[in-house]
Amino acid sequence: MQITILGGGGFLGRKLAARLAHDGALGGEAVTGLTLFDLQEPPAPSAPFPVRCLGGDVADPVQVAKAIPPGTRVVVHLAAVVSAQAEADFDLGLKVNLHGTLAVIQACRTLAAPPRVVFTSSVASFGGGQEARLEDDARQIPGNSYGAEKAAAELLLQDASRRGFLDAVNIRLPTVIIRPGRPNKAASSFVSAILREPLLGLSTDLPVPEDFAVWICSPRRAIDWFLHAMTMDTAPLGLDRGINPPGRSATVGLMLSALESVAGPEARALVRHAPDPGIQAIVEGWPASFTAERARRLLGFSEQESLEEIIQGFIEDDLAATRAERGL
Amino acid sequence: MQITILGGGGFLGRKLAARLAHDGALGGEAVTGLTLFDLQEPPAPSAPFPVRCLGGDVADPVQVAKAIPPGTRVVVHLAAVVSAQAEADFDLGLKVNLHGTLAVIQACRTLAAPPRVVFTSSVASFGGGQEARLEDDARQIPGNSYGAEKAAAELLLQDASRRGFLDAVNIRLPTVIIRPGRPNKAASSFVSAILREPLLGLSTDLPVPEDFAVWICSPRRAIDWFLHAMTMDTAPLGLDRGINPPGRSATVGLMLSALESVAGPEARALVRHAPDPGIQAIVEGWPASFTAERARRLLGFSEQESLEEIIQGFIEDDLAATRAERGL
Repeated sequence: MQITILGGGGFLGRKLAARLAHDGALGGEAVTGLTLFDLQEPPAPSAPFPVRCLGGDVADPVQVAKAIPPGTRVVVHLAAVVSAQAEADFDLGLKVNLHGTLAVIQACRTLAAPPRVVFTSSVASFGGGQEARLEDDARQIPGNSYGAEKAAAELLLQDASRRGFLDAVNIRLPTVIIRPGRPNKAASSFVSAILREPLLGLSTDLPVPEDFAVWICSPRRAIDWFLHAMTMDTAPLGLDRGINPPGRSATVGLMLSALESVAGPEARALVRHAPDPGIQAIVEGWPASFTAERARRLLGFSEQESLEEIIQGFIEDDLAATRAERGL
Repeated sequence: MQITILGGGGFLGRKLAARLAHDGALGGEAVTGLTLFDLQEPPAPSAPFPVRCLGGDVADPVQVAKAIPPGTRVVVHLAAVVSAQAEADFDLGLKVNLHGTLAVIQACRTLAAPPRVVFTSSVASFGGGQEARLEDDARQIPGNSYGAEKAAAELLLQDASRRGFLDAVNIRLPTVIIRPGRPNKAASSFVSAILREPLLGLSTDLPVPEDFAVWICSPRRAIDWFLHAMTMDTAPLGLDRGINPPGRSATVGLMLSALESVAGPEARALVRHAPDPGIQAIVEGWPASFTAERARRLLGFSEQESLEEIIQGFIEDDLAATRAERGL
């Protein structure tokens, strides 16, 4: 099975590539080749199959076509400009998040058989805010450009699926915690930072109140969802290719309590209250909870771990590498 | 007030231009100039203000920028590739319906003050079919490329409004009957044809059963809605720029009865039953009814006429011109 990961150099792309390299197979079938594509040429994991690493622009149809060669069975499209960056640079967000997806559609369309496309949409494509508990048929009324671009891209991938150009599964990812590495330009970057930085012994700012709730998932679970979406039967989806996966709704206060229970009160004490109206204006529109019934019951997406397990997972999977990367 | 109509050579564009030329004013303010833009240079109505007529490609940002000169206060964006045509030619539909809207956004963004943009989206952007009676918060799950492109364009215009590039009102038009002229490539073309052709003394085919229901509006009401949307207060819309206007749900059988009551049984007898699975496959997904509460109560969009009034309106406004155009 020939697989391509667009955004293969990012946090989740690298984890997915490493998992495929480790497993050597997907859905009981051997992986025969993996292409990793990102703005900068991504690192290749050592794998029992050939790995091609390409650097390029996801909005350039020629480069994307090279990243999705004939015979590609699965494309995981993670390439994106994140929320705060898409808000700061409208043209860049539109280019990567919308035109990039159009380039993916055009590339898939030229293949002899329509590939599975796993696309990461986002909780940020919804409105509703703190009070919301969104049903599976909730409308996407995004309050930020990133969410609007993701929702528009979903519609186009859904239509391309109906036309038989490809076979899309659009996963509206919760805020993924704990992201390794450094803070990034996502408005939700703080949700990881308030757990990661204290685990590194560093202080960090909390830009929202402690009773602020976030719809979250772990990197481990996100990867499980991708692997499931890469081979699942899409017939039960019908026209509707959008999936709200079973994340977890948690307040910042609960996250900090879990941090304290795993790493002690000294870790929690490293989190400083520093309200940031700019960040808050973006994230307060995002819904804090989903019912996610369809993903759970009909589609077999796995449940979220506890907050303590999520923190423990970061310590096991990413803490040492993050320390090394940041020279700590 | 400087106004631009994109798609100004089409059926509704010409009617809107004629109405503005007749009134000379909009919302109590004098119209100071009108630009009509279409694939072919549209005809200019005789008007008490200058009318510029431009032929060009709505997907070409340079040409669209020329059509939306500095000082433009209102843009009515009607330019589209219709449903059956967008289904037959994916690239053309995407180009005009999606990239055309992106060109409009980029042109509006360069103006000193954000113009009002009235955009025609469509009932075809929804699913649900014959059994549906859609609430105002219904999700758009389009079953055709035209609807997907319109829904994606709505999201982008909504985001552009939030960013202050423009001030959009996205009207999801029902199937407009009775269209003058000839049958066109819209899958819904028959809904007009079964009334228009008999009024011209011509026979026509009915591709769906008589109990097939359609969500319709008259051209007169569509123009009233545009005029309202061109000057209405958009503050009550908030983030949500999509409007389901108060159309009317009617079965084909009811339309034919209204035809009979206006034009006699000999008119109805000109309609032949000729099931067409291709047409039916597209239109049977469109919802047959909406509650349209927000448009009615909160936003002041006017109610639909009766079927008899709609037929009478066509006889008064368009029958003679249609006869002349078709050499009848």
